[in-house]
Amino acid sequence: MNATADRVTAAVMIIGDEILSGRTQDINLNAIAKALGAQGIDLLEARVVGDVAQDIVDALNALRGRYDYVITTGGIGPTHDDITADCVAQAFGVALHEHPEIMAMLHARWGEDVTPARRRMARVPEGGGLIANPVGGPPGFFIDNVFVLAGVPAVMRGMLIDVAAHLQGGAVTVSRTVRVEGFGEGVIAAPLEAVARAHPDMALGSYPFFNERGYGANLVLRGRDPEALSAVVAELVQVLAEAGIAPVQIDPPPAESIATAG
Amino acid sequence: MNATADRVTAAVMIIGDEILSGRTQDINLNAIAKALGAQGIDLLEARVVGDVAQDIVDALNALRGRYDYVITTGGIGPTHDDITADCVAQAFGVALHEHPEIMAMLHARWGEDVTPARRRMARVPEGGGLIANPVGGPPGFFIDNVFVLAGVPAVMRGMLIDVAAHLQGGAVTVSRTVRVEGFGEGVIAAPLEAVARAHPDMALGSYPFFNERGYGANLVLRGRDPEALSAVVAELVQVLAEAGIAPVQIDPPPAESIATAG
Repeated sequence: MNATADRVTAAVMIIGDEILSGRTQDINLNAIAKALGAQGIDLLEARVVGDVAQDIVDALNALRGRYDYVITTGGIGPTHDDITADCVAQAFGVALHEHPEIMAMLHARWGEDVTPARRRMARVPEGGGLIANPVGGPPGFFIDNVFVLAGVPAVMRGMLIDVAAHLQGGAVTVSRTVRVEGFGEGVIAAPLEAVARAHPDMALGSYPFFNERGYGANLVLRGRDPEALSAVVAELVQVLAEAGIAPVQIDPPPAESIATAG
Repeated sequence: MNATADRVTAAVMIIGDEILSGRTQDINLNAIAKALGAQGIDLLEARVVGDVAQDIVDALNALRGRYDYVITTGGIGPTHDDITADCVAQAFGVALHEHPEIMAMLHARWGEDVTPARRRMARVPEGGGLIANPVGGPPGFFIDNVFVLAGVPAVMRGMLIDVAAHLQGGAVTVSRTVRVEGFGEGVIAAPLEAVARAHPDMALGSYPFFNERGYGANLVLRGRDPEALSAVVAELVQVLAEAGIAPVQIDPPPAESIATAG
């Protein structure tokens, strides 16, 4: 664990051929990012890997040593391509066992009809604990700083609720958005950079947009001290005004579905 | 370049704090995955990194040595947080220069009003070539096996058209989907695994679904030989029938918006 008092970090690992083949649009990363942010945990990296054991093991070992927490999604079902539990056990150098609580759930649900495939879902690395699944089906699990969730988004989101209880967050990052319309980044950049350089402890990003009504940019300021952030917002508005740019301030920032940095 | 006659590989690197903060839902990875697949290129890994220079350089160097092609999105605009060109140059150990073609475009567009911020968008690593931008704004660039695209999805997709002309693909992977309804993975898993083990050259994935109308799984078979794939589809249907499971076959596979491996 690399947690410090003022910054807790995390990585996400998305496991599944279907994301890399383009068959499936991932929506789990965004949901996890928001949940971590709400706990004051900085998501610093994400990786998408296919259903290839060595790739999963290598990526997991790289991430779990570098960040305070790793959250994985996918590959914990009953079919032959669900190999996440095997890979997590291999990464930690421990054996898999059939967790007695999951076996009890399976017997309660299926009676004697617990097929070998269903038993696969009871396999948890030794030393691991369970993550509650309020949606239906078997639980996820965690071991040390790695949290292993389902890939089906509705199930994944249900498991995230229990994950939150296991994570120790830090100061929450707050963000403010200053929206500028009718001006492109080519003229916004200079005033924005002046403010960014004066406040290296804040993150200032510029996210351009173009649509049928016009163009502009959302200038997003992020920091852990709300009062300091408000002061920088005021400063940015002032600096923009001096450049002849009157922003339309939107606060809190809107959920943007597609805009990314150009 | 690690290309072999029968397999060409790629990785995607998505650059931007806004993805990791949860502010923005990435949709570029899926578009790139589909475009690569159409050219017979296997996307084997994706990484999302923030606007942190050393993280970008390290990830790029890891990926460009391992895969035939790397495609990046984001961070090529004019603002201070657009550092992708700097990082690519650093990763290759070359200098940045103002590309004369981009400078000519900027002067044609802005006359004498080419601000320092706008000039930033002309910076390309020495030895790099340009990627056409049919949507508007300056082009992307490539150097060796790395292709650097905008993050705004509409612009990124426009640039992908030109990227395709630079990539040398392989045999295209085709996929077939066998849809099973009213049966869970717990009973599908055994027949599916039997077929998967008999055909290690094919990829067989199971993607469960649950919705208001019922539940089931899409069994996706992927391979490069369409005739061999059809034979395996027939075999799977037969094996499922022997297990009392009558599939509803859907072909070509539908675009699933949310289902992923459980």
